[in-house]
Amino acid sequence: MSSSSVVPTAKPPMREALVAAAFRLFLERGYEQTTVDDIVALAGVGRRSFFRYFPSKEDVVFPDHERCLADMTAFLAAGGAEHEPVRRVCDAARLVLRMYAENPTFSVQRYRLTRQVPGLRAYELSVVWRYERALAEYLRGRFAGRPDGTLRADVIAAAVVAAHNNGLRSWLRSDGEGDAGAAVDHALAYVQKAFGRPAEAAAPAPVGPGPFGGPAGEPDDVVVLACRRDTPLWRVVQELEAARGPA
Amino acid sequence: MSSSSVVPTAKPPMREALVAAAFRLFLERGYEQTTVDDIVALAGVGRRSFFRYFPSKEDVVFPDHERCLADMTAFLAAGGAEHEPVRRVCDAARLVLRMYAENPTFSVQRYRLTRQVPGLRAYELSVVWRYERALAEYLRGRFAGRPDGTLRADVIAAAVVAAHNNGLRSWLRSDGEGDAGAAVDHALAYVQKAFGRPAEAAAPAPVGPGPFGGPAGEPDDVVVLACRRDTPLWRVVQELEAARGPA
Repeated sequence: MSSSSVVPTAKPPMREALVAAAFRLFLERGYEQTTVDDIVALAGVGRRSFFRYFPSKEDVVFPDHERCLADMTAFLAAGGAEHEPVRRVCDAARLVLRMYAENPTFSVQRYRLTRQVPGLRAYELSVVWRYERALAEYLRGRFAGRPDGTLRADVIAAAVVAAHNNGLRSWLRSDGEGDAGAAVDHALAYVQKAFGRPAEAAAPAPVGPGPFGGPAGEPDDVVVLACRRDTPLWRVVQELEAARGPA
Repeated sequence: MSSSSVVPTAKPPMREALVAAAFRLFLERGYEQTTVDDIVALAGVGRRSFFRYFPSKEDVVFPDHERCLADMTAFLAAGGAEHEPVRRVCDAARLVLRMYAENPTFSVQRYRLTRQVPGLRAYELSVVWRYERALAEYLRGRFAGRPDGTLRADVIAAAVVAAHNNGLRSWLRSDGEGDAGAAVDHALAYVQKAFGRPAEAAAPAPVGPGPFGGPAGEPDDVVVLACRRDTPLWRVVQELEAARGPA
């Protein structure tokens, strides 16, 4: 399903009126008790107008995800070799956050609704899965030809989505009061630390033929050193001094 | 929904007969074209028998997930403080693999079916989400009171599930010919490397109030040391000698 066939790129007032009417009824009567007929009656339009914008009642709950998914795909496609891949997918995930943060009241209402209605949770899982696939596809391209490329792509995409959603949910649970950007930045920094270039240097693999894994990219006040257990102590001290640099 | 209310712990022949009949019809006619009436007619039982075992037609496609989820929850609950948490969730994920590997032909057929039927993919996403929540809940307990405990729990659970599924899918795509255990072990090792204790030692947080992050759990021949840049060299050497142990 291409987004353009379902959702017009410009948001006409009728589409917004349908979303507003739907949410007013969902909150007043409950999601299950509200029909599409109820929604179109309140919005003052016909059934066909509803289905021109939304394939189903579930879709009106998530009116902006198609657009956001298209934005994310375009953003990733516009990236070049100069963009560090893990950082790029973190930045792509921030597009989702921005969509939520644009309208805190609506986002918090939807969060509560989604937790109450099992059908909406299932729908949300499928949306999240599509974001995750978009990130994984991009990373698979960036890691093509490298050992474990698809494995790393899938794992990092899942980690980015989980971190983003952890930060997003803590903001939604604060009723949209806190700083959404800071919560998500903090969560994504954890993933970048684990999978960005610094964590690779800390893993045993890059120790390679020589005795030392290079410390690289750590925060300024911490030095990390990996060495074989049988490395002579004088070599360790030499490397350590080089890594710590001038005091 | 408790698993015991839906799925008897022992597998009676009738349950297996229903699964076998369902899959024969799904493969012959297609999933959508097969009704519950068709399945019970072929299995020679009544409709009520079907619904005693399976809440819906979708559930017959995934007959063992409730049992596996219960096994996983019990396995995690049985773990003690002596189990390294990331390793424990990796071992829990291997229970899912074992279920697939017990019956390769059935698992490969189901994999193909699930890829063809959107409704089954949505169902599978909800199953995967329940496994991920079980792993995350366990890790949240283990990381309780530690900085970013829920963040780390959610991210690691997602990474473990993604790695497991990457290994599982590569085995399913080989038509169950390859070594399922080896594929999944390899994938999970990548996650353990990123999030097990070695990676923690590289992150600034565990450096804590003292100058040293502890090296622990590395492969025997590699020592990882994290220290503040301003730590006196004699302290570094002292810690390093302690960490390397007797030569």
